[in-house]
Amino acid sequence: MGDQIGIAVGGTLYYVPLDEFERIRATSLEPVEKAEIFAAFCRINTLYMIARAGSGHIGSSFSSMDIMSWLELNEQSRDGTQGANGPSSVFFSSKGHDAPALYNVLIGAGHMPFDLLHKLRRLGGLPGHPDIGTPLMVTNTGSLGMGVSKAKGMVFANRLNRVERNVFVMTGDGELQEGQFWESLVSAANHKLHELIVIIDNNKLQSDTLVSKVSDLGDLEAKLRAFGWYVDRCDGNDIADFSRTVAKAKQERERPKVIVADTIKGKGVSFMEHTSIDSDVELYKFHSGAPSEDAYVKAAQELIENANKLTQNNGLETVMLETVIRESAKPLTGAQRLVRAYSDALLDQARRNNKIVALDADLILDTGLIPFKEEFPERFVECGIAEQDMVSQAGGMALNGLLPIVHSFACFLSSRPNEHIYNNATEKKKIVYVASLAGVVPAGPGHSHQATRDISSLAAVPGLSLVEPSMVDEVAPLVDWCLNKALGSSYLRLGSAPTIFPELQAETFVPQPGRGRQIRPGKGVAYIVYGPTLLAQALQAAHSLAGDGIHVGVFTFPWLNQVDNAWLEWLSRTYGDVVVIDNHYAIGALFDRFAASIATKPVPGLRLFQVAIHRIPACGTNDEVLAAHGIDAAGLAATVKRIRR
Amino acid sequence: MGDQIGIAVGGTLYYVPLDEFERIRATSLEPVEKAEIFAAFCRINTLYMIARAGSGHIGSSFSSMDIMSWLELNEQSRDGTQGANGPSSVFFSSKGHDAPALYNVLIGAGHMPFDLLHKLRRLGGLPGHPDIGTPLMVTNTGSLGMGVSKAKGMVFANRLNRVERNVFVMTGDGELQEGQFWESLVSAANHKLHELIVIIDNNKLQSDTLVSKVSDLGDLEAKLRAFGWYVDRCDGNDIADFSRTVAKAKQERERPKVIVADTIKGKGVSFMEHTSIDSDVELYKFHSGAPSEDAYVKAAQELIENANKLTQNNGLETVMLETVIRESAKPLTGAQRLVRAYSDALLDQARRNNKIVALDADLILDTGLIPFKEEFPERFVECGIAEQDMVSQAGGMALNGLLPIVHSFACFLSSRPNEHIYNNATEKKKIVYVASLAGVVPAGPGHSHQATRDISSLAAVPGLSLVEPSMVDEVAPLVDWCLNKALGSSYLRLGSAPTIFPELQAETFVPQPGRGRQIRPGKGVAYIVYGPTLLAQALQAAHSLAGDGIHVGVFTFPWLNQVDNAWLEWLSRTYGDVVVIDNHYAIGALFDRFAASIATKPVPGLRLFQVAIHRIPACGTNDEVLAAHGIDAAGLAATVKRIRR
Repeated sequence: MGDQIGIAVGGTLYYVPLDEFERIRATSLEPVEKAEIFAAFCRINTLYMIARAGSGHIGSSFSSMDIMSWLELNEQSRDGTQGANGPSSVFFSSKGHDAPALYNVLIGAGHMPFDLLHKLRRLGGLPGHPDIGTPLMVTNTGSLGMGVSKAKGMVFANRLNRVERNVFVMTGDGELQEGQFWESLVSAANHKLHELIVIIDNNKLQSDTLVSKVSDLGDLEAKLRAFGWYVDRCDGNDIADFSRTVAKAKQERERPKVIVADTIKGKGVSFMEHTSIDSDVELYKFHSGAPSEDAYVKAAQELIENANKLTQNNGLETVMLETVIRESAKPLTGAQRLVRAYSDALLDQARRNNKIVALDADLILDTGLIPFKEEFPERFVECGIAEQDMVSQAGGMALNGLLPIVHSFACFLSSRPNEHIYNNATEKKKIVYVASLAGVVPAGPGHSHQATRDISSLAAVPGLSLVEPSMVDEVAPLVDWCLNKALGSSYLRLGSAPTIFPELQAETFVPQPGRGRQIRPGKGVAYIVYGPTLLAQALQAAHSLAGDGIHVGVFTFPWLNQVDNAWLEWLSRTYGDVVVIDNHYAIGALFDRFAASIATKPVPGLRLFQVAIHRIPACGTNDEVLAAHGIDAAGLAATVKRIRR
Repeated sequence: MGDQIGIAVGGTLYYVPLDEFERIRATSLEPVEKAEIFAAFCRINTLYMIARAGSGHIGSSFSSMDIMSWLELNEQSRDGTQGANGPSSVFFSSKGHDAPALYNVLIGAGHMPFDLLHKLRRLGGLPGHPDIGTPLMVTNTGSLGMGVSKAKGMVFANRLNRVERNVFVMTGDGELQEGQFWESLVSAANHKLHELIVIIDNNKLQSDTLVSKVSDLGDLEAKLRAFGWYVDRCDGNDIADFSRTVAKAKQERERPKVIVADTIKGKGVSFMEHTSIDSDVELYKFHSGAPSEDAYVKAAQELIENANKLTQNNGLETVMLETVIRESAKPLTGAQRLVRAYSDALLDQARRNNKIVALDADLILDTGLIPFKEEFPERFVECGIAEQDMVSQAGGMALNGLLPIVHSFACFLSSRPNEHIYNNATEKKKIVYVASLAGVVPAGPGHSHQATRDISSLAAVPGLSLVEPSMVDEVAPLVDWCLNKALGSSYLRLGSAPTIFPELQAETFVPQPGRGRQIRPGKGVAYIVYGPTLLAQALQAAHSLAGDGIHVGVFTFPWLNQVDNAWLEWLSRTYGDVVVIDNHYAIGALFDRFAASIATKPVPGLRLFQVAIHRIPACGTNDEVLAAHGIDAAGLAATVKRIRR
């Protein structure tokens, strides 16, 4: 879930090379000791991987590292033969954001090319969340709660194909807030899917804070038992305990099994371990994002010391590290941050209207709700990772006279409670949905988090206006429009990437439904764009085209499911060629509204063109991915040159 | 969920008039006895209402009737004052398909106009599922699992507004298969929402069969307790027991409360009671749809005898009934049934490909899966009312080499597992989604079941082809195309209304992506249509326009998210004016693909027009609703006359 994008760590970075892993694997140590050293090495490399990438989930990777290490070394036989502990099994993580741990376990075991260590969240490297395009990945995860269901499908197929194979699924504990987890338990018990072994990485923290603060799981074992599952519990950071627990679970041949593995988020680095933090912790700092350079150095030191202690205790040489020296990234100064502007606008509105309440799905950091929560605690509802429940709760609130504002990432908010948003719409009460992380960037988390289908999924909801600001000065007026002027409900799409704009002489922004705002004047060709990232690219493209004598006008267009035909007529007087730049799949995006408008009421002289996403978005740095999809400045300029030939 | 549309019952129909209810309400009987007689009267009227409407849910209305009667008479004070049992409460049913019971309780209590008794599922009458457009309805239901969440939102608002009020929510037991139910329990306990009283109408049957056969609830009380709720259990058809249980629950001032009310589906009519049926019952007959004329007479007789027994036992006069004589509806002969054709096509494919497996969400009757289940029991998976789990299971199966075909109603399948379909699509394995009850008719169940937003919700899913047959002879070729020719996954949209076509000289159908099929030749104007219902209307319109000398060509267009521009060029040679008839909201439907295609590559001489749904679909008979939205033959003809003026 939460996916803070930071900056890559500079200075000297340390990693364990492949031959060091091979040295440990070749020893005659007992499996438990071997796995302990292996996990210690993997932690060093996971820290390296995330520091180098500039983002990734440390806390969850560390809490699950010991479990993953044991399973990879002892429950898998990658050559398809039967391993020491029975038939080869399948393992995947439902939470998915612990991918750095999984990648490193596979790299350390020699099953994944070693050079991928340096390519987390890079184009052609390892995606932020698992994708089966990467060898050995079993299924695509990144959206929570789907894992057990998928595993059930695999077990069904195995049985039909007469294949005997255990399927291990790791879930988070915060993930259990998703209804689908509970939905998936029932039939597994009824169908006696004993091949299914679910391991709950019970690290007590979700994105923002303690699970118990968001949505206390209560007596988790009792719940799971009531659903008819075999339940056991162990210390998930104690490999000996965990391995015994797995061995015992495998004896059960009737019920599906779940192991509650108590773990420590950030395990292995004292100051990252959640248990080292005051129990009143409001915000755990190492859920996502790279550490600071200082924190990196201190953490690496601890991990290396621990690895050396383990090797020495087992009579082995200490670990030989390799180093990479990286330049420190320059901090981004002068960037516009729309989520922060939204934060301010929301506070301003909330001070004037006591019917406003805000709902959040465990993304308080990413959705800008901290100031609201602090000022209006009684009007803030943390719903946890439970988007359907959140949206329907908002429906109940709106029916009883409140003005609910519902927050999550665009990828999740538009799709998981899709029917619930529609159900609310049929009640015709005003609700505002605020969807951050909209569009193809940040591109590091991968396609599960890249919202490029949200406009189409929601555009037809009756009475729902889809709007998106492109610059900071458009945020407050649009928030005001949604709350105080729109007749119906709204979906406010927010680009989360901090963006630097050149100096501009933009028109003052006044929300006028279906009409664009001129940001840069031109003649003959216009870019129609929404969201900060593509606006910046469009402005850069226009600047470069001006050098070629092509003067492209740039308009932000904050209305994603309506266009005013009269405005198109006005536009056509100066701009015959209009290029709609969709930060979205080609189908169902803004371009369709333009096309439908002129099909219904032709605008003579207007030619429409579309630039959009035409395949599943790539994962990588923002620059890499914008270029890969042809929506960077160069791609946008090339489009204009092609149509003006 | 399941919503079989039958035909209205003919012959003599009986109902209890308002003054009879008033007589009972005015007696000085004890509340329990009064409620028992009241419920007996309401059952007579509910049977009448559904028989007259030709559809509706008898089983579930009868199982919940005693509960609803008690709550309406004793827990509500409709004038806003404090009632005998404390502050007035709110009641609504999350399952929603028991609406006939709720309507009759309100009519009997004198709070709903009596003449609405005759207008179930009629335009301007009472919708098939509750909608707040009807006075006293608290929230819109019809899609399962949302109720507790909505109630939580209401309680939150009440607390913020300093209003003390209990919120009673009725749920089905089959409904508990929806993950959202469990998702919603957690925070209610954490926030100590003691105002919330959930009553589970535990009638043991869901749409198709016994809940225990689909997805055994196991130890339901233990589950609910493990979630931290106050749990009690009673006989929900024993008003004395139920009323005591409610009174006791209201004493609890900490935990949210749930009452497992054991009821009998079809309670009150011996042969409709599920307990009277062999425990091996495969298909319960009285979930939805009107009874046969014979069954009506026998059922009415039993209900009247029971009412008389109750009145006499309490020293009152027997019930005075009023009657209506209705003509028997003519059976629909010669109608094309696409779901049946799908059934056959699926069987044919399954016999040739043993990788095909079928998944169903408790709609085996409505989705045509009975023959498949009988012939291939080991390849059939009944997932229950758990669409997210179903779609993710299909994903796991496809990853392991099977070819899953996933079934539900279009309204649910396109929206509730919307993100799950996308997640599967990113894995690029072939899955076919078969969505019945597509479009605006049958219009009786109301907008929760009218799928007019599914094309837009799914059109942008990469690699997913959306297709829809319009006639029986298009079904098998399209099924074959989806399974054996399409490169990616497909969503097969199926109109469920049996449809009669005139004699036709249609072209032979060969699936050619993006190209239409000529059904009736014409000149100058063409209708582009998909699905049987609107095809029949279009043909009728074309026939009537021919009388005015306008020869409209009619084309079925089975491709909902792709159009071949070259075919449009071909079309434009004969037809300058093209009217796309969308059985869908205007935005995001087929018209947009036509418009986008000609915007990208203009087709000189082609003018595009759209007929579509522009507001939330009305509930009523099919004819009423088609006319109300201007998509009946008359509306379609009028459109052509307007554009040819």
